[in-house]
Amino acid sequence: MKKLYAVIGLGRFGGSICKELSKEGKEVLAIDMDEDKVNEYKEIATHAVIADSTDELALKELGFRNIDHVIVAIGDNIHASILTTLILGEFGVRKITVKAQNNYHEKILEKIGADEVVHPERDMGRRIAHSIISSNVLDYLELSDEYSVVEIKAGEKLSDKTLIELDIRKKFGCNVVAIKRGKDINVSPMPNEQIIMNDILIIIGSDKDISRFQKALVNEED
Amino acid sequence: MKKLYAVIGLGRFGGSICKELSKEGKEVLAIDMDEDKVNEYKEIATHAVIADSTDELALKELGFRNIDHVIVAIGDNIHASILTTLILGEFGVRKITVKAQNNYHEKILEKIGADEVVHPERDMGRRIAHSIISSNVLDYLELSDEYSVVEIKAGEKLSDKTLIELDIRKKFGCNVVAIKRGKDINVSPMPNEQIIMNDILIIIGSDKDISRFQKALVNEED
Ligand SMILES: Nc1ncnc2c1ncn2[C@@H]1O[C@H](COP(=O)(O)OP(=O)(O)OP(=O)(O)O)[C@@H](O)[C@H]1O
Ligand SMILES: Nc1ncnc2c1ncn2[C@@H]1O[C@H](COP(=O)(O)OP(=O)(O)OP(=O)(O)O)[C@@H](O)[C@H]1O
Ligand SMILES: [Ca+2]
Ligand SMILES: [Ca+2]
Ligand SMILES: [Ca+2]
Ligand SMILES: [Ca+2]
Repeated sequence: MKKLYAVIGLGRFGGSICKELSKEGKEVLAIDMDEDKVNEYKEIATHAVIADSTDELALKELGFRNIDHVIVAIGDNIHASILTTLILGEFGVRKITVKAQNNYHEKILEKIGADEVVHPERDMGRRIAHSIISSNVLDYLELSDEYSVVEIKAGEKLSDKTLIELDIRKKFGCNVVAIKRGKDINVSPMPNEQIIMNDILIIIGSDKDISRFQKALVNEED
Repeated sequence: MKKLYAVIGLGRFGGSICKELSKEGKEVLAIDMDEDKVNEYKEIATHAVIADSTDELALKELGFRNIDHVIVAIGDNIHASILTTLILGEFGVRKITVKAQNNYHEKILEKIGADEVVHPERDMGRRIAHSIISSNVLDYLELSDEYSVVEIKAGEKLSDKTLIELDIRKKFGCNVVAIKRGKDINVSPMPNEQIIMNDILIIIGSDKDISRFQKALVNEED
């Protein structure tokens, strides 16, 4: 049987989830109490319905008991977010993901039955702060508190050197796992591969090692 | 000279940037027109000031001409966001990053002098939609439209196999660049490394290849 999703709250965050799930061919029920928002999603979601999610009867009539995964993306109205989560939990919905406003909100949500709590603005704020601080790191994936994969733009200090000359693994303990040059990506770079200015290196290692590498071979003075 | 940052708008997104920059020891001026928000950041930012950023004179008095990088994190009030960006552009601020509400907003911002436009809720919505769809992919880094690094949780089909037995590179065209087991991360896995249940594999490759690998060796029926 096809999985059924529902998104409650079609702000920027909930709306984006709804669009992406729909784009991937998923069955999505989109709910908002604001008629204009619902109209925006009429052609995107499988169904788009005006409803107040704190109204238990309305949710029951919409068949919420049969939905496999509900995303509650209500923002500023913390009370509505909590009440909605409580109702969904009592319905026995299989998986409930809720957007939290702050840490207190998160604690309450977890106690009343949220399976997953997300903080989109906080997490994206952190990501962007990191990219602001180290402008040569274009993007990254945190593997743990200590390890990451980072995309680093090669400047002058790396230009025209081969990987074997640089010997990054031996000197800094991190590995170059791919090189991006314009639209091309080489995911198995050879030791004699020559780096050119503005190549993007994909590097895996401990944050400490990556940072040593950056200080030595990436950062310009500022 | 130390770089000066300013964050205008201390909602969840702007507040998170302000916290993270401050945590990293950066000099940050935090601005909001809401007194309660400003009080929250008094102990966090270098300076926290109540001001309306659409008031050119107020910004001038705060020394905005000398700030190296301003982040405009005003949300719902699109007009205030645009006007603020215009004023900062005329001041000649070196770098202006602005949070956009939608694509029209983005276009206007770029025309009037924003150097970088970000969509935190939209981008995080996409990330979360992807993690909802493929529950074995814990996190990922998009390298391009076609290539990614993904964190995949090993289930039964991968358990107790060695990398050489699986021959993932030959069969699927993607590379296992690291293995995470509990708190340990091995960033140079050997061919005879044995995968155990719930290990997290860090894999690089084209999305098509990664998806073939997942279908064959990761996804359970649902
Ligand atoms: N009880 C409710 N039932 C249905 N929809 C609701 C309810 N309460 C709020 N919403 C809807 O949730 C959406 C998101 O709420 P709001 O704009 O407050 O959140 P936000 O966190 O600022 O949004 P964004 O995702 O844009 O950051 C709005 O479209 C709002 O109409
Ligand atoms: N002209 C202005 N000058 C200073 N601060 C402003 C101005 N306009 C709005 N703000 C502040 O910007 C902050 C963010 O605005 P708002 O809450 O509308 O955005 P949001 O996108 O919903 O926030 P979030 O980052 O939580 O998703 C608020 O604290 C608000 O007081
Ligand atoms: Ca928001
Ligand atoms: Ca992660
Ligand atoms: Ca809001
Ligand atoms: Ca990227």
